[in-house]
Amino acid sequence: METDAIAGDGIRSTTVTGADGVPLRVLDAGSEDAPAVILLHGFAQSARSWLHQLTAPRSIRVVAPDLRGHGHSGKPDTGYLDERVWADDVAAVIDELRLDRPVLGGWSYGGLVALDYIAVHGDSALSGLLTVDASLLAGVPGAERMFGPDFVALLPGLTDEDEDTVAAVRRKLLDVSVERPLAADTAQTLLDASLHTPPRVLAALLQRPLDRSGTAAEVTVDWLAVQGGSDRIVAPAALDHIAAVCPAAQVQLWEGTGHSPFLEEPDRFDEQLTAFVRRSVSGS
Amino acid sequence: METDAIAGDGIRSTTVTGADGVPLRVLDAGSEDAPAVILLHGFAQSARSWLHQLTAPRSIRVVAPDLRGHGHSGKPDTGYLDERVWADDVAAVIDELRLDRPVLGGWSYGGLVALDYIAVHGDSALSGLLTVDASLLAGVPGAERMFGPDFVALLPGLTDEDEDTVAAVRRKLLDVSVERPLAADTAQTLLDASLHTPPRVLAALLQRPLDRSGTAAEVTVDWLAVQGGSDRIVAPAALDHIAAVCPAAQVQLWEGTGHSPFLEEPDRFDEQLTAFVRRSVSGS
Repeated sequence: METDAIAGDGIRSTTVTGADGVPLRVLDAGSEDAPAVILLHGFAQSARSWLHQLTAPRSIRVVAPDLRGHGHSGKPDTGYLDERVWADDVAAVIDELRLDRPVLGGWSYGGLVALDYIAVHGDSALSGLLTVDASLLAGVPGAERMFGPDFVALLPGLTDEDEDTVAAVRRKLLDVSVERPLAADTAQTLLDASLHTPPRVLAALLQRPLDRSGTAAEVTVDWLAVQGGSDRIVAPAALDHIAAVCPAAQVQLWEGTGHSPFLEEPDRFDEQLTAFVRRSVSGS
Repeated sequence: METDAIAGDGIRSTTVTGADGVPLRVLDAGSEDAPAVILLHGFAQSARSWLHQLTAPRSIRVVAPDLRGHGHSGKPDTGYLDERVWADDVAAVIDELRLDRPVLGGWSYGGLVALDYIAVHGDSALSGLLTVDASLLAGVPGAERMFGPDFVALLPGLTDEDEDTVAAVRRKLLDVSVERPLAADTAQTLLDASLHTPPRVLAALLQRPLDRSGTAAEVTVDWLAVQGGSDRIVAPAALDHIAAVCPAAQVQLWEGTGHSPFLEEPDRFDEQLTAFVRRSVSGS
């Protein structure tokens, strides 16, 4: 069944028309008048990654799309290699939801999508940038040291179409995504979300070489970069690289935390998120 | 995608061939030598209802099938009106997993399926019976007082095939299923599970008139019946009815708890479950 429903009270579910007419499912919580943040999930995940942020008591608006090829958004055969497609998907969310200078946030691959947006459209429609365990480099020389060996070992399996392999490798991906244990239901929700992304989409994402160092150096808005110190997917070296190319970025290394700070320490993350969004939006 | 994966470490996922060859997906946790309990979920739910019981530290084996028409089990067009089909599905789980005199447990509609099994096969292959917020009557004279008005009001919507209605009514069903609030991820897991059951299956279940008073009166094994005192789906009158027809049953009314004691007070439930299973199996 394609039918979906979201359990959290007060979460609106809407569909935005992205680039090339692809439907993007967007979860949206909080007052429409509040300072807003768009949160882009990572590789093989969905907006449900942000369920805690969407349901926590808040004074900000949280807008979480399913990226194309993921969750309940459209999964076209092509287009995953084009930065303009990713950038225009984000622009469509900003436009259709009439967001007034939101903070744009991205976790892991979502951070690269946030930088796709800035590379194509600039940052003048934003109040701030938030990256969470994101590398500026992928699939280019120098990217090797940004990714952990446990993650690299999973790459061949992630593009395998065999059904049993898919289930097993998504479990392993979830295992390496956290250092602090998740509640069983939280883990199950993430695993279910992961299975909505077919291997062909992951194969396409893994074929896209990116170096966003140049874009990062030109960011003019407030930038908060959070990184788990024990992340086995994106190594802490990725945070050092952000600090090097954009010295104005505010960087936070969370000791003992894995790839998923907002899942592993949700209350701490929500506090930082709320403070950053309120400060960035009011200061703009 | 039909691919599925279960996040809980140590949960085995297997397929049992039920009546008429229908595949039943069964989750199975704990040592194969430990005293075993089969837990049958309720109407429009799945084995994931028991995720806490499947992942809690335990000294018992927990076996949780998806009922036919539900979760990741087969969803044939017909057969839902035949008590022998339900009974033989349970027998297949006992046989294929070589369970030695397990306790048979059922929540809500799963309690009726447990009694289908006993009506057809007797209770000689069991060590005990556990019912949780289950009514012995459904769709027969006298059944009206066993169901709460909030649930009865949902019945027309539950068989509606319209996609938006399906999503909305399953949310409402979840809302009336608990009195004590669930974590967002727990609620999401349950809602996702619910969407695996198509309205046509629910329509069939609702067409099956049942009076299990006679079967209940002939139960010879230990019987623990738990009932939430604030249940809005199956009223506490259902527990009184069990006590009346089977005076040997041990009945527990949990004040302030809704239809889902094992979700609303999981630690308390697990303690009762473990003690009951260990006592019943060792005493047999």
